Amino acid sequence: MRADMLTAVLSELNGTSADIEASAVISTDGLIMSALLPAGMDEDRVGAMSAAMLSLGSRTSHELACGELEQVLIKGDKGYVLMTDAGENGVLTVLAKPNARLGLIFLDVKRAAENITKLL
Amino acid sequence: MRADMLTAVLSELNGTSADIEASAVISTDGLIMSALLPAGMDEDRVGAMSAAMLSLGSRTSHELACGELEQVLIKGDKGYVLMTDAGENGVLTVLAKPNARLGLIFLDVKRAAENITKLL
Repeated sequence: MRADMLTAVLSELNGTSADIEASAVISTDGLIMSALLPAGMDEDRVGAMSAAMLSLGSRTSHELACGELEQVLIKGDKGYVLMTDAGENGVLTVLAKPNARLGLIFLDVKRAAENITKLL
Repeated sequence: MRADMLTAVLSELNGTSADIEASAVISTDGLIMSALLPAGMDEDRVGAMSAAMLSLGSRTSHELACGELEQVLIKGDKGYVLMTDAGENGVLTVLAKPNARLGLIFLDVKRAAENITKLL
């Protein structure tokens, strides 16, 4: 089952680092394909905000001569949102703690995104 | 002259790293206060895209429980766009090369944003 395999990738990712609080695979039009979110966090909201950020991020990247969008990172005072391209059809969104080690998160997320790309 | 002082901060920032290709200080409503951009890059476009990204980034950060927006990073295959909060009224937007050392860029940009905050 592909849905189970996606969830397994997210479960492994969330388990890799205590800094990762949530993760989700989202279609490029903002629909959730798989999600491991904290209780109380709305799937649809994560999907919708991810799709909106990626759409505008892609336009910004092109307009400012930075080419094809690969990643968007949002840093807030209470945490990070990291959205990473996962092939043509998917996006991996990860929520991390404010003091997360970004270098490790980038590495783990990149690996997970490659695995998701193969599954979609 | 405040405009000259802003330009001096940007000039120092661009000179700090060969990876930084352009920088600009933008009001939170998207108007350019000072900019050091490559020839052919439109100031208004940089201002407009920065303001749009920050507005949506702020909303995303709040909606996904990450608090007040501090920074937005866009990674494209041809470079980075980094937008950093510079006080209540300003935003520092920096364009960097695709292979830029992000750790150094974050450090230099943080210092420049602090200096800009004092000037605005």
